[in-house]
Amino acid sequence: MDFDNTSPTDLASLGEFGLIKHLAQHFDIKHSSTVKGVGDDAAVIDNGNLQTLVSTDLLLEGVHFDLSYVPLKHLGYKAVVVNLSDIYAMNGTPRQIVVSLGLSNRFSLEAIEELYQGMLLACNKYNVDLVGGDTSSSRSGLIINITVIGAAEKEELVYRSGAKEGDLLCVSGDLGGAYMGLQVLEREKAVFKENPKLQPDLEGKDYILERQLKPEARKDVIEQFKALGIRPTAMIDVSDGLASEILHICEQSGVGVDLYEEKIPLDSLTYDTAREFNLDPTVCALSGGEDYELLFTIPLEDYNKIKNLPDFSVIGHLTPSSKGYQLIAKAGTVHPLKAQGWNHLGS
Amino acid sequence: MDFDNTSPTDLASLGEFGLIKHLAQHFDIKHSSTVKGVGDDAAVIDNGNLQTLVSTDLLLEGVHFDLSYVPLKHLGYKAVVVNLSDIYAMNGTPRQIVVSLGLSNRFSLEAIEELYQGMLLACNKYNVDLVGGDTSSSRSGLIINITVIGAAEKEELVYRSGAKEGDLLCVSGDLGGAYMGLQVLEREKAVFKENPKLQPDLEGKDYILERQLKPEARKDVIEQFKALGIRPTAMIDVSDGLASEILHICEQSGVGVDLYEEKIPLDSLTYDTAREFNLDPTVCALSGGEDYELLFTIPLEDYNKIKNLPDFSVIGHLTPSSKGYQLIAKAGTVHPLKAQGWNHLGS
Repeated sequence: MDFDNTSPTDLASLGEFGLIKHLAQHFDIKHSSTVKGVGDDAAVIDNGNLQTLVSTDLLLEGVHFDLSYVPLKHLGYKAVVVNLSDIYAMNGTPRQIVVSLGLSNRFSLEAIEELYQGMLLACNKYNVDLVGGDTSSSRSGLIINITVIGAAEKEELVYRSGAKEGDLLCVSGDLGGAYMGLQVLEREKAVFKENPKLQPDLEGKDYILERQLKPEARKDVIEQFKALGIRPTAMIDVSDGLASEILHICEQSGVGVDLYEEKIPLDSLTYDTAREFNLDPTVCALSGGEDYELLFTIPLEDYNKIKNLPDFSVIGHLTPSSKGYQLIAKAGTVHPLKAQGWNHLGS
Repeated sequence: MDFDNTSPTDLASLGEFGLIKHLAQHFDIKHSSTVKGVGDDAAVIDNGNLQTLVSTDLLLEGVHFDLSYVPLKHLGYKAVVVNLSDIYAMNGTPRQIVVSLGLSNRFSLEAIEELYQGMLLACNKYNVDLVGGDTSSSRSGLIINITVIGAAEKEELVYRSGAKEGDLLCVSGDLGGAYMGLQVLEREKAVFKENPKLQPDLEGKDYILERQLKPEARKDVIEQFKALGIRPTAMIDVSDGLASEILHICEQSGVGVDLYEEKIPLDSLTYDTAREFNLDPTVCALSGGEDYELLFTIPLEDYNKIKNLPDFSVIGHLTPSSKGYQLIAKAGTVHPLKAQGWNHLGS
């Protein structure tokens, strides 16, 4: 690496993806068993018949979660689920997790048991073994790192890089709900701070609160692919927001995209709550993140296999890379698709 | 898990090992591919021919390292090495790592590059691929979590639980050096705090400083085992101190031990520095930790294979479990061997 005497570079200027890419470029791959390193939802290791998939996630109190409104049991559940989602996004099956915890002394054993009870629920639901870990005292807040190990047959694996011009862009479930759930929780926290006697008003918001507090990974979607005889050409899970994930697939596959605003699936509660907050529902879906739906591409000839399934939405199609990344708004106007935020109709 | 209304349990009363054991007991193993879960240096996953080994370690600023005297490059190197050591302790070969980083905004890109440069050095030296990771902003200090993936043939694997009565207890290298290196660094830090104009006095302490700041994992020992046709009956790496590691092997193997104080290998600089600090050199070896040597047991008939190798010391032998855990002091007196600290000769 180069070390010069110019002023230090600000990390924020690179962003998370830039940083990982920048740091990883100096590491050569030495093992022929290392099929895929940095740059997809999971690393891929060849073991002969089966490929081993590995993914890791670090969750920090005050950055990724706020214990003032997230119950520990839900946090444990979510911490496992978001990791499993990365393995499903490779069309693989998660099998084992290892968990590292940093605990400050404000946590009792009972509190940590509650966290683990949530992890246990997720492990049981998704048929995953907890096989190891590390615990440590922490001088700041709660720290959770989970690494998940999965498996897939070589010919089943789906990378971000396999999308082809003409493929359909599809997504499971609906988007933006987790983000709107977070907005409601943050609003009620602010109200509570002002007046601790007021009870939080969460009525009627169940669906979006659950999307935020207890998300699910789309194991069922992977199973449906098998049943339908579909192998997506590219796939990624929606953790950072639809726009950012679409761009990952397009950049790594070397294609452009036409995304149709009217096709983006939104739950009516997500839509109404966004309006209540004076937010554009489409922007919430494009930039909200944490939905853990699967975004994938399939060849046009597979359209008939999914067209009648209500849980899948075709939201666009892939174009030559020269056509770039385009959002076609409901009004028919065309806008450039950007990773963070999107200035809806110029307003 | 049970939740009752009695007062919360203090985490410290359980200790790290107690906590992991306590939490993991509620998780059943669901996959037949999960050969070994919590409780050894690494988890073991069956992949047909090869077994996959997985281990993870969380390192926190202010708890595991002090950036006021640990250079970032050394920290990166050590963070990788301590993880690899867990795989060697299973008689396996580490192949891949994934790295999660939590970074506060006081770190520049150049600082993080330095950290990665150390990781790169370790990856190159030990022939390991960095295949993925996660970075996050941190509101407190630097957080490093590394998960290592290794491989071993089924019949090569060595667990903590295989030691037999009559086996010899052996250790590679020498012990207590890393702990004495830490004492020197802490002393010089205290001196510097008192008077920032004083230069740190580290002269002649190179060996123990290197043991603390840039430890090595004993890849060479595993290679020697292969060359000598030795497969230890049990093995563990010395991360928490000799006494604690011996007890892990004895408890998991269901045997007792006679450990001979005079046989514990100490470097002369470790010995002299311990004396300089008015510390008992044996206690430093028993409780110091961070030496990353390999502690292992072999059948008596393998003694001839190692007796002339200066890098291996036979330090005791395994007894029936009814005889308990004993330390035979230089004076011939017998003391109970305990995990933390050891009150040398009653003084």
